[in-house]
Amino acid sequence: MGLGNVGSGVANALLSQMDFLSVRVNRSLNLRKVLVRDPSKHSNSQVPPQLLTTNPEDILDDPDIHIIVELIGGTEPTTAYLEHAVTAGKHVVTANKEVMSKNGPDLLALARRKQVRLLFEASVGGGIPIVGSLMNQLVANEIQSIRSIINGTTNYILTQMAYHRAGFQQALTEAQAQGYAEADPTNDVEGFDAAYKLSILASLGFHRRIGPDDVYRQGISQLHPKDFQYAEELGYAIKFLAIATQNNGDIQARVYPAFIPRDHMLAKVDGVYNAVEITGHLCGQVLFHGQGAGREATTSAVMGDVMEIARNLGQPTPQVPVLPPETHGSIRAIGDLKCKYYLRLNVADQPGVLAEIANILGKGGISLASVLQKDADAAAQTAEIVITTHPAREASLQQALGLVSSLDVVQEVNSMLRIEE
Amino acid sequence: MGLGNVGSGVANALLSQMDFLSVRVNRSLNLRKVLVRDPSKHSNSQVPPQLLTTNPEDILDDPDIHIIVELIGGTEPTTAYLEHAVTAGKHVVTANKEVMSKNGPDLLALARRKQVRLLFEASVGGGIPIVGSLMNQLVANEIQSIRSIINGTTNYILTQMAYHRAGFQQALTEAQAQGYAEADPTNDVEGFDAAYKLSILASLGFHRRIGPDDVYRQGISQLHPKDFQYAEELGYAIKFLAIATQNNGDIQARVYPAFIPRDHMLAKVDGVYNAVEITGHLCGQVLFHGQGAGREATTSAVMGDVMEIARNLGQPTPQVPVLPPETHGSIRAIGDLKCKYYLRLNVADQPGVLAEIANILGKGGISLASVLQKDADAAAQTAEIVITTHPAREASLQQALGLVSSLDVVQEVNSMLRIEE
Repeated sequence: MGLGNVGSGVANALLSQMDFLSVRVNRSLNLRKVLVRDPSKHSNSQVPPQLLTTNPEDILDDPDIHIIVELIGGTEPTTAYLEHAVTAGKHVVTANKEVMSKNGPDLLALARRKQVRLLFEASVGGGIPIVGSLMNQLVANEIQSIRSIINGTTNYILTQMAYHRAGFQQALTEAQAQGYAEADPTNDVEGFDAAYKLSILASLGFHRRIGPDDVYRQGISQLHPKDFQYAEELGYAIKFLAIATQNNGDIQARVYPAFIPRDHMLAKVDGVYNAVEITGHLCGQVLFHGQGAGREATTSAVMGDVMEIARNLGQPTPQVPVLPPETHGSIRAIGDLKCKYYLRLNVADQPGVLAEIANILGKGGISLASVLQKDADAAAQTAEIVITTHPAREASLQQALGLVSSLDVVQEVNSMLRIEE
Repeated sequence: MGLGNVGSGVANALLSQMDFLSVRVNRSLNLRKVLVRDPSKHSNSQVPPQLLTTNPEDILDDPDIHIIVELIGGTEPTTAYLEHAVTAGKHVVTANKEVMSKNGPDLLALARRKQVRLLFEASVGGGIPIVGSLMNQLVANEIQSIRSIINGTTNYILTQMAYHRAGFQQALTEAQAQGYAEADPTNDVEGFDAAYKLSILASLGFHRRIGPDDVYRQGISQLHPKDFQYAEELGYAIKFLAIATQNNGDIQARVYPAFIPRDHMLAKVDGVYNAVEITGHLCGQVLFHGQGAGREATTSAVMGDVMEIARNLGQPTPQVPVLPPETHGSIRAIGDLKCKYYLRLNVADQPGVLAEIANILGKGGISLASVLQKDADAAAQTAEIVITTHPAREASLQQALGLVSSLDVVQEVNSMLRIEE
């Protein structure tokens, strides 16, 4: 269902590589029908026109179709299609992160009741096998953290900003010109896409239901080239990180641009690549790195799921974990986060300013790790102060920053970014 | 079976984390018996003494035991134990790379006939989920190459040699003192261990039987600190790489120390970490990085397999690919390798020597990419020449090197290393 970029990749694989794919599952794989909105738009497609249909029921209700691949995206009408497919006893493969993030646990429970499989390796990380690894090979671990770069658009933009000191708008325009960002980039740059994916990984890793609303979100549009300059001076890169941590059953999940030490492997993930670092009590740190999007990489994941199902067609459905079996502990708000912070402030260029700021932060229990006084502007009589802190509670920092920004000598708190180690 | 380092880790997980492991498979996991050679040596173990046995048949023939975990290692008597277990209808999990490399395809075929599962995630890469990923999530790919660092002992030694300019013997002694190398290090430093693991990955990735004898092997004991110095000057790291490539069905598999560009991710894998880079026609390059050995990481992989089996006990066995379905193409000898080379020669310090060497290499079709003249020794009247070549066929290079080393002005060809890009 769906013959866009990824849909074409999957259709082409099924049409042109059917022989070797069929050998590997010891069963013939045949593309039966393809749902499209407008068949006339696919006259150049490899898919024979007689396979195209505009009626979803031609697929959902065809008894000769065993596996349905959903590559439409979004929740409407796909959620209804997926429910229909599962209820009709079809196995389903989807790349739909939004549906799996919002409705995944319900759909998986339905699939279990109906004794069909619902696989979604392609929903996170493109060609990186992270979903299956969390569900299977790493399942014996108590996962302590998931730290990831799982949105290629924003990583491309940040890479441009870091290497070329481009402003956000310029980098975004460049990404749009390259086809890496959509005309309306909100879903990517405000972190919705990353939050969907993180909620899927966190649900699998922590064995409980974590929805997109459980993920704190801060986008990248407020980043300034100066932040990249100071990050570099301080030994860090700025990356758009999707992080979920678990501590005594309490979960914290967040998506934001953050400082990360330049020699950390996540700092070296450039362009449209993705990476996921899993820390478990047995496996230690395992890092996965690869192409997080694109036609071929996503086709790799979709076809892996299709072949896994095809290999076992006609047998009882293997048992998979269903969420949520483990529900102790709570989802913690961002105010409970404890980490180091980077602050960039525009202040009056006069003696005693730093002391006033340090005084307020100190009263809030926030101690300073480093202070740089930068870019004094003689005409405006302002200067820029760059501060890094020792670990502090976010609620305390936010409160202190409110007091700092109300000081007469403080023009503006320009940036507040978390520092991940 | 086996209560060594990894065996203790698995037993401890089953004993102390039984509750949460059982919840995740919706079934109670019980450690029933442990095979040991000498029970008196395990009096400090967490395993209750009444679970210990010295008789393998107590385990192999116990009808109440459903899953057997083999953590003894080696081929004798373990191959017989594994055959016995499978024939008796037990599911088997093993971390044994030697057995899986030498007898894996036969054992897997037997397991298929007996309708039991034989899983071996822990045989390669410790906590890195590479075996399952190749068998499942990446199965739709035509794999073009597998490039890996899969022996922690040698990577630790090379890291010491690179960072501290230690000689091989000194770095080996240090590794032995740290418990990272065995008293007899042959299995690691001569590449047997890496060849076993590579043959497993290559068999899975290329869907055909590739045994340890199909892997060309060169160890690391001849490396000299000077090689690390010149590698660094030329922009490379030296890593002990296990590589298998596929070209039109022809396979080439080799384990050797090689130059790799310093900014390549494999160049940054330090200490006892492992990494595997898979290149497939759909997934592109996917890199896995993590702890390749050790009690906990290996326990993660073993328990992942145990839980995968436990979740589906009583159901028909899921179908897995059995080797070898794809057997076109041949295994190519090392002489057919085509790559760039690094050469270090000790020569007479007199005019015309380089011309003589370049002449011989040129006649063999080998063109030079760079030449460094180093370390003239006035007393001995010798100098060191460091050469890198453009891509050449290994057979041609070996033949030319034979001629070069017979020159009167050439004292010795000290090093010949491949350059991977």
